[in-house]
Amino acid sequence: MAEKKRMQISYPSSRKIYVPGQIHKITVGMREIKLTDTVTEDENGELVHRKNNPVIVYDTSGPFSDTKMQINPNQGIPRIRESWYDGRKDMIRLNELTSEYGRQRLHDPALEAIRFPIKHLPYKAKSGKNITQMYYAKRRIITPEMEYVAIRENQQIEALGLKSYITPEFVRKEIAAGRAIIPANINHPEAEPMIIGSKFLVKINTNIGNSALSSGIHEEIEKAVWSCKWGGDTLMDLSTGNNIHETREWIIRNCPVPMGTVPIYQALEKVNGDVASLSWEIYRDTLIEQAEQGVDYFTIHAGLLSNHVELTRTRLTGIVSRGGSIMAQWMQIHNQENFLYIHFDEICEILKQYDIAVSIGDGLRPGSIYDANDAAQFAELHTLGELTKKAWDHYVQVIIEGPGHVPMNKIQQNMKEQQYACHHAPFYTLGPLTTDIAPGYDHITSAIGAAQIAWYGTAMICYVTPKEHLGLPNKEDVRAGVIAYKIAAHAADLAKSHPGAQVRDNALSKARFDFRWKDQFNLSLDPERAQEYYKASKPDEGEFCTMCGPNFCAMRLSKELYKNGKNKKTKCD
Amino acid sequence: MAEKKRMQISYPSSRKIYVPGQIHKITVGMREIKLTDTVTEDENGELVHRKNNPVIVYDTSGPFSDTKMQINPNQGIPRIRESWYDGRKDMIRLNELTSEYGRQRLHDPALEAIRFPIKHLPYKAKSGKNITQMYYAKRRIITPEMEYVAIRENQQIEALGLKSYITPEFVRKEIAAGRAIIPANINHPEAEPMIIGSKFLVKINTNIGNSALSSGIHEEIEKAVWSCKWGGDTLMDLSTGNNIHETREWIIRNCPVPMGTVPIYQALEKVNGDVASLSWEIYRDTLIEQAEQGVDYFTIHAGLLSNHVELTRTRLTGIVSRGGSIMAQWMQIHNQENFLYIHFDEICEILKQYDIAVSIGDGLRPGSIYDANDAAQFAELHTLGELTKKAWDHYVQVIIEGPGHVPMNKIQQNMKEQQYACHHAPFYTLGPLTTDIAPGYDHITSAIGAAQIAWYGTAMICYVTPKEHLGLPNKEDVRAGVIAYKIAAHAADLAKSHPGAQVRDNALSKARFDFRWKDQFNLSLDPERAQEYYKASKPDEGEFCTMCGPNFCAMRLSKELYKNGKNKKTKCD
Repeated sequence: MAEKKRMQISYPSSRKIYVPGQIHKITVGMREIKLTDTVTEDENGELVHRKNNPVIVYDTSGPFSDTKMQINPNQGIPRIRESWYDGRKDMIRLNELTSEYGRQRLHDPALEAIRFPIKHLPYKAKSGKNITQMYYAKRRIITPEMEYVAIRENQQIEALGLKSYITPEFVRKEIAAGRAIIPANINHPEAEPMIIGSKFLVKINTNIGNSALSSGIHEEIEKAVWSCKWGGDTLMDLSTGNNIHETREWIIRNCPVPMGTVPIYQALEKVNGDVASLSWEIYRDTLIEQAEQGVDYFTIHAGLLSNHVELTRTRLTGIVSRGGSIMAQWMQIHNQENFLYIHFDEICEILKQYDIAVSIGDGLRPGSIYDANDAAQFAELHTLGELTKKAWDHYVQVIIEGPGHVPMNKIQQNMKEQQYACHHAPFYTLGPLTTDIAPGYDHITSAIGAAQIAWYGTAMICYVTPKEHLGLPNKEDVRAGVIAYKIAAHAADLAKSHPGAQVRDNALSKARFDFRWKDQFNLSLDPERAQEYYKASKPDEGEFCTMCGPNFCAMRLSKELYKNGKNKKTKCD
Repeated sequence: MAEKKRMQISYPSSRKIYVPGQIHKITVGMREIKLTDTVTEDENGELVHRKNNPVIVYDTSGPFSDTKMQINPNQGIPRIRESWYDGRKDMIRLNELTSEYGRQRLHDPALEAIRFPIKHLPYKAKSGKNITQMYYAKRRIITPEMEYVAIRENQQIEALGLKSYITPEFVRKEIAAGRAIIPANINHPEAEPMIIGSKFLVKINTNIGNSALSSGIHEEIEKAVWSCKWGGDTLMDLSTGNNIHETREWIIRNCPVPMGTVPIYQALEKVNGDVASLSWEIYRDTLIEQAEQGVDYFTIHAGLLSNHVELTRTRLTGIVSRGGSIMAQWMQIHNQENFLYIHFDEICEILKQYDIAVSIGDGLRPGSIYDANDAAQFAELHTLGELTKKAWDHYVQVIIEGPGHVPMNKIQQNMKEQQYACHHAPFYTLGPLTTDIAPGYDHITSAIGAAQIAWYGTAMICYVTPKEHLGLPNKEDVRAGVIAYKIAAHAADLAKSHPGAQVRDNALSKARFDFRWKDQFNLSLDPERAQEYYKASKPDEGEFCTMCGPNFCAMRLSKELYKNGKNKKTKCD
């Protein structure tokens, strides 16, 4: 089904390095970018080489960028966390799947051809045990996952020989307080732990998934790896088409980043799109089915109550969250309260057995500038806060989903309202888009809002591609969306003075000033694109680009100013 | 030389309308976008059509989008402002060019083939008369240009039958106070007046121009018209290659928006790139040469003083402004103060005779995150404030150029410092870029900063294309840059609650909710791109797109919620 050839991610002048843990037996993968020397002329005209330290950058590409690895999608990537489970007395391995639907798919001979070839039996908490990261954190236990993310967040400043405030103990405290989460389903041991919280690097989520109209398994795995290549920190599978179960298995087994889903989508597929037929029982089995596959976080639209729907009648664009509109319609048909709200405790009971985080969905996120920060959105937000407390009672890790479309002057209010209403649980927003008038460019309208809201404290921003509102993204759209969001996230890290965030900017700017073009490309978020644009202009070799031509290069003129010779006549590499 | 075929800009479902003035004999061109009806079903199943008012949008395309016009680049576009000069006793028309270089180029037979075919003799203020918009404003005179921009800024709310605070008298007051400018050289009567000031719509500038390495006259005119098509409010010609004089003439004669230049670039060409040979005399003649052609504003790096250069030694990326680095080098070679600073009064004497605005250049704008808001930049900024006062003494209109590369957390300080130091003269920034690490995507890194600084009060933002730092932009890069900046400017207009700004967002979002796809495309900043992306996904006809597929469309589900039938079963057009 999926391609047989070796899958690989490569970055120019880069190598994979592994930093060992000090508390646990872990190694944290990172990417080291090698730089060339700065070459200057001394007073006697002799060339002087000065080394530039390699730059270490946060790496989401997992084993795909390790040249020593041979990755075959039919086998999946290494299950790095599985060895961390050794000796744990609070979890067990089941002998078979619990989910009825999961079993049915597993034993359906017609699915043989598209089924992931290796069967991994699911892990689960031992009866009566709690195994969530939040539970451990509150018990003052530093898990391997916590140490892992502490090392991972500090890669740049450790390289400078400095110490940052982000220690394993700091991570533990933030998780205990509910201000950060590590989404890490025990059934997704392939995932490298990462942390989502306002005091850490801003993360980005990318969405993939087939709809009824297009896209197959092969393409979805490629998109997942592609997203990891460009820097996606988590991945949501929003599939709504055929063979969702099998597609997801393939993706999870090959996915080095946490994966989220919106289980109501698959539940609705199971009832052939008939909202009236949705039930708690179908939904519940879907949760377990996906929990056993290894989904790391679930978007659950449990905060949308029947009395909120009335508040949307005066809206310009009604309810634009798919999950929200499904639940609103269900409530109207049955004249009952949202069953996700009613059964939220039971949901948490399930989630905590696998350490799945809940991403409480904002069914009423505004779909237009006109609807931003309205009564409907804020009413639901306060219910999300209520559910946050409820989840925390179960030690289930929580993030809160946010808008949507919000003009810049209302973004800070949105952030503050979320922090207040949801007790500083991490905020996870879709953009927000700062204007409605640019379909085809919504990765940009939303990167503007995402950068701002991340600066104000949003922990993870969900990418938007140029195809938003228009169609399903292809690979190039995914790349455009991921890079726009890496930019927004990094701009926010800089604005928040995250330790070490500026190391890469400084190194790139120094390379630029030194006319070390290749270093400039290699340090950039998208080396291929930078080099392609540079080459398209076909400059002569030398200390300028086509923008200015040889007579006008400001940097060249500027370097000549500093007469001590130190920076004079840098060679172009 | 330039293409002979008719040049035309067309927008779907749009027509050109003209709104007459009430004080002056003027008509202000605008674009009206026709919308289709909202079609719903009433309780009896009958279709009900409800009209949607057309939306009027700000239009920078000049006569190119008027289907009644036949524009031949060899003749130039209509000189609409020339009739406004009738009866004016404060200006004269010269019998020949004043600029020595201008005359030399005019009489060089070798240039016949590339010279613009029609010779327009230059206008100039009568001796002893001041003709600047600021001068008139301070004399409490409302010029045709002032009324023009007042009508132009209000197009959307006038259509709603409302009155805004932006009256001709309000425009006059803002110009008198120096808080806004109308760049309108009397020798560029082809330009439609527009206003740059923090209380008006945020404007965007685009740069074109050939370098020594590429690009010709034909291509530059095409780029200029292309920039106007997508919404560029002003155009800077930054040519540094051959035949700058002739290229500029072609562009100005076909340019419906104000044009700016950096005269030092051409002055340097005149001395074959030898900075040492630059002199006030050469520069002065260049100013007059360009003034007589009709350049509407000059970037002049007069605020960079010799003692500022020392402050840049500790920078990571030195001086990245081309004009700044040229002047710094000149000062070092000659051990003299910046001649633009020394001769600033004489510069103003020249500018005011044509009503050319000065855009005081920031030679020390930061070229990296590391250098943002440093002592060098702020020291120069205070000199720019000193020069602002000096220019205002001559009634010369002033804007102040700004950065550059600035992390989000330092943008507001930059804006405040400019407002304080430069007495609320309009700020005109290049971005700023909020991170250094994304060459190839700097239209996005900078749109994030531009949206923010414009919200804080910057009046005009200078676009950045994806090729920034890498090469000269081609047409697609110009389009990408312009749209990114239209987004940033519009996001800022919304955030500032500019009267009427949200009309277009509301109309587009209503069209989206009604599944009026074509209206959605036609109302967007780039209808062609939106439609292309939609078609690429090849959805079935119906009330959904490939993003969600038929079962999952939130808007469709949401519409079904509102049971009164009003919004039910909207037909897709």
